[in-house]
Amino acid sequence: MGKLMRRLSTQEQNFKQVFKDLLAFETVSDPELLKTVDQIIADVRQHGDAHVLKLTQQFDRHPAHQFSELELTQEALKAAFEGLTTEVREALEMAAERVREFHQAQKQEGWTYVDALGNTLGQKVTPLDRVGIYVPGGLASYPSSVLMNAVPAHVAGVPEIIMVVPAPNGELNPLVLAAAYLAGVSRVFTIGGAQAVAALAYGTETIPSVDKITGPGNRFVAAAKRAVFGQVGIDMIAGPSEILVYAEGANNAKWMAMDVLSQAEHDTVAQAIFITPDEALLNEVEQAIEEHLAALPKADIARTSIANRGALVLVKDRQEAIDLINQVAPEHLQLCVEDPQAMAEHIRHAGAIFMGRYTPEAIGDYCAGPNHVLPTSGTARFSSPLGVYDFQKRSSLIMCSEQGVKPLAKTADILAQQENLDAHARSARYRYQD
Amino acid sequence: MGKLMRRLSTQEQNFKQVFKDLLAFETVSDPELLKTVDQIIADVRQHGDAHVLKLTQQFDRHPAHQFSELELTQEALKAAFEGLTTEVREALEMAAERVREFHQAQKQEGWTYVDALGNTLGQKVTPLDRVGIYVPGGLASYPSSVLMNAVPAHVAGVPEIIMVVPAPNGELNPLVLAAAYLAGVSRVFTIGGAQAVAALAYGTETIPSVDKITGPGNRFVAAAKRAVFGQVGIDMIAGPSEILVYAEGANNAKWMAMDVLSQAEHDTVAQAIFITPDEALLNEVEQAIEEHLAALPKADIARTSIANRGALVLVKDRQEAIDLINQVAPEHLQLCVEDPQAMAEHIRHAGAIFMGRYTPEAIGDYCAGPNHVLPTSGTARFSSPLGVYDFQKRSSLIMCSEQGVKPLAKTADILAQQENLDAHARSARYRYQD
Repeated sequence: MGKLMRRLSTQEQNFKQVFKDLLAFETVSDPELLKTVDQIIADVRQHGDAHVLKLTQQFDRHPAHQFSELELTQEALKAAFEGLTTEVREALEMAAERVREFHQAQKQEGWTYVDALGNTLGQKVTPLDRVGIYVPGGLASYPSSVLMNAVPAHVAGVPEIIMVVPAPNGELNPLVLAAAYLAGVSRVFTIGGAQAVAALAYGTETIPSVDKITGPGNRFVAAAKRAVFGQVGIDMIAGPSEILVYAEGANNAKWMAMDVLSQAEHDTVAQAIFITPDEALLNEVEQAIEEHLAALPKADIARTSIANRGALVLVKDRQEAIDLINQVAPEHLQLCVEDPQAMAEHIRHAGAIFMGRYTPEAIGDYCAGPNHVLPTSGTARFSSPLGVYDFQKRSSLIMCSEQGVKPLAKTADILAQQENLDAHARSARYRYQD
Repeated sequence: MGKLMRRLSTQEQNFKQVFKDLLAFETVSDPELLKTVDQIIADVRQHGDAHVLKLTQQFDRHPAHQFSELELTQEALKAAFEGLTTEVREALEMAAERVREFHQAQKQEGWTYVDALGNTLGQKVTPLDRVGIYVPGGLASYPSSVLMNAVPAHVAGVPEIIMVVPAPNGELNPLVLAAAYLAGVSRVFTIGGAQAVAALAYGTETIPSVDKITGPGNRFVAAAKRAVFGQVGIDMIAGPSEILVYAEGANNAKWMAMDVLSQAEHDTVAQAIFITPDEALLNEVEQAIEEHLAALPKADIARTSIANRGALVLVKDRQEAIDLINQVAPEHLQLCVEDPQAMAEHIRHAGAIFMGRYTPEAIGDYCAGPNHVLPTSGTARFSSPLGVYDFQKRSSLIMCSEQGVKPLAKTADILAQQENLDAHARSARYRYQD
């Protein structure tokens, strides 16, 4: 049997390079894939509904004979919700409520102020008119993804939320429809792939064009989202899931081992890293991972993930760990320490910080409240969790008075002349000299 | 002589299609350009400083013999500032101060709250560590761009702001350096093109890699920014400049004609649209445009711009105008009306709204306060002006108590089982059953 998981120590001479190599994950764009996706987009733009129906019959083996069969009614969503067991329905309701409560706090409002010259300046905040939510079908069809994408849009005040979800062989996960019902989705089409992204971006006879498309998908979906970016907004193109667990002091190794595996079970290229200054704890966690794997349905995936991209890292002290964390900028960070708030002060880059021993990452995937769509592959250095702010945008407001504009117009005149923009200068000059 | 400018009326039968065609502006990606840019990026990643120096000598005809000559000292920036005439220096200082004051109001702070279960939830806001500002050289070297990109980063608290600006033949606009001095730029390199973008994204021996790159540039720069997106953050890829002026009631046609031309003089593909329900005013503005053009240094550019992409549009009433404005989602919107605030309430999509007759767009380019980097080509439907928020990012905070986690863990357990994610379910279960 091969090694379970890479073990590293910051004391090793080549640690820096090894750690850097561990983090490296570059996606290579496949020219054939891009060509296929570009063709699908062009065909959907030209032939609309008919082409989307054709590809849905072909790729998803969907039994629909006409396009109208690809739209679900609100009654169908409600029926799916009402068909859930009490236990599952209550769990979904609690998740939706908590996600909604957290995202309410993110909502941004406009503001204005009057400057010393009597001019009014400000920022207007408006929801997007219409957004598209992509929900994968089949095995990766997660009701939690529906909540995490649709609830922020709904909280932002987006009037129309269009969801697409492929239904292979015409089959759908009722929990996904129930989540759409709870989250405030306006319309649902059972389509997927690049054709669904193209339909949302450009519109067809039946599907209205949206202003932004969010949600995860396979490589065709990711490539299509990149291709339509500019025509519409998109969220980030997500990389594989990641967790970094840091522990010191009294901790339950079995718990943390399962936390590590909860990301590893997602994907063979997911990345799970455990860091501690406590070598005995490192050994215990390693042993607990081995034990858990024996009983885990997705053990093969998890084993590949931790063997290829996982690591158990021994550090000298907390400061070394903080430096490594800021280098990784992990999607999920768990701080299993006595004083997580004090430690979190020093974390500059992470998608979400799970603080203390009673805060497993898994609750964040479902019902803690914050979004589970988070920046991956180090992009937390410059980007944020999906949020209400992704479904709002700003317009600057400027209103000058007859007197208040004069000093500004004079300054604009002088600077515009320096930039050789004469119409700018004259347009400004009229307001103080005319 | 050809027609000055297209004239449209919403009463014409084919108006909708003609107006839609007028707005259409699709940039075509040039495969040769992308190949060239990809090669430059690969070479800079491999050869670092040496390759950047080589391309700078070759493309910019820069006289530098070694890489160190491509970095400017803070003393050089200060000297440029001190060398300005009093009038220009004071204008630049006023602009920087006003831009700083407005952007201070945009700064976001973190927050937390304690939920009914005693769990703490929140959002941490952190500035980016290091950003790169691209400033075009030569003719389009605008000191106002330096302020508009660097000041928001500085206000956000970004510790290192690296500016790149090409110096064709080794020549630089001293006003650009003076603006860098005022805006709080940390380091300046006199490099440009795709090689500067690659150096900022991946770092070289001398240039540190940044987390985000903002600022305008030619098509090589735009393509390079697209290519490095994901490795670093980028701002929007800007399209041609646009203005939409709406007027009713008593107005000065000469003023508004110059406002229209102030965007048209930027670029032959810039778009200037004038809308009014007042046919007499439409005629006056058209005549004033013709008269202004006779005396404008950039008349040729402006004439081409308004002939190809401009329009004078007669509407029935204000409501029609509002609908058109929301369809265009213009970069710059001027509302030359008695009650601009009331009208602005109905505008859902615009980069910046200039309200009233004393608020020409040109003051927004320099010194009104709000940013002049604005969404173009209808992207105001889903995106915002460049702002402090582009240089900050968020991390979610979750801290559960031993008791408070139990109901969440139970919900996560139930939902994770529905998603067949067993390690997730068990990780959550430990926290309420162990």
